Amino acid sequence: MYKVKVYVTLRESVLDPQGTAVKSALHSMSYNEVEDVRIGKFMELTIEKSDRDLDVIVREMCEKLLANTVIEDFRYEVQEVVTK
Amino acid sequence: MYKVKVYVTLRESVLDPQGTAVKSALHSMSYNEVEDVRIGKFMELTIEKSDRDLDVIVREMCEKLLANTVIEDFRYEVQEVVTK
Repeated sequence: MYKVKVYVTLRESVLDPQGTAVKSALHSMSYNEVEDVRIGKFMELTIEKSDRDLDVIVREMCEKLLANTVIEDFRYEVQEVVTK
Repeated sequence: MYKVKVYVTLRESVLDPQGTAVKSALHSMSYNEVEDVRIGKFMELTIEKSDRDLDVIVREMCEKLLANTVIEDFRYEVQEVVTK
């Protein structure tokens, strides 16, 4: 069994209105040190072992569903879970 | 200047309907290996150096705004950015 952590972030060139709103909110709470906020998604998948290659299927899932690759980048980390 | 990566996840005991929907979508795309999906948020803050302690203000920002600590957990990583 694997735990796969997927991080989806907006590409640098894409405006992030949600991030801008959070930044304004933090400034209004007097956290003026905050210069920039970018907001993304974090997904944790639990995946069973199968005949298919894990890297291939995770990449496919990200490209087809989890990330919109036109405006988003993704990266992932795989961790094997050993069950006794 | 610091880059702070904040990860906000639903607590284990809290249902994640969005994750369940994504899992169903992945199954319908024949990724039946996927056993569970949990969805969270990932935020990247750029913070200027100031007199206040970074750990203290990041924790405060998470508790007051970025995470709903009743149903969510948060963790963060700090990375110092050296500008020349």
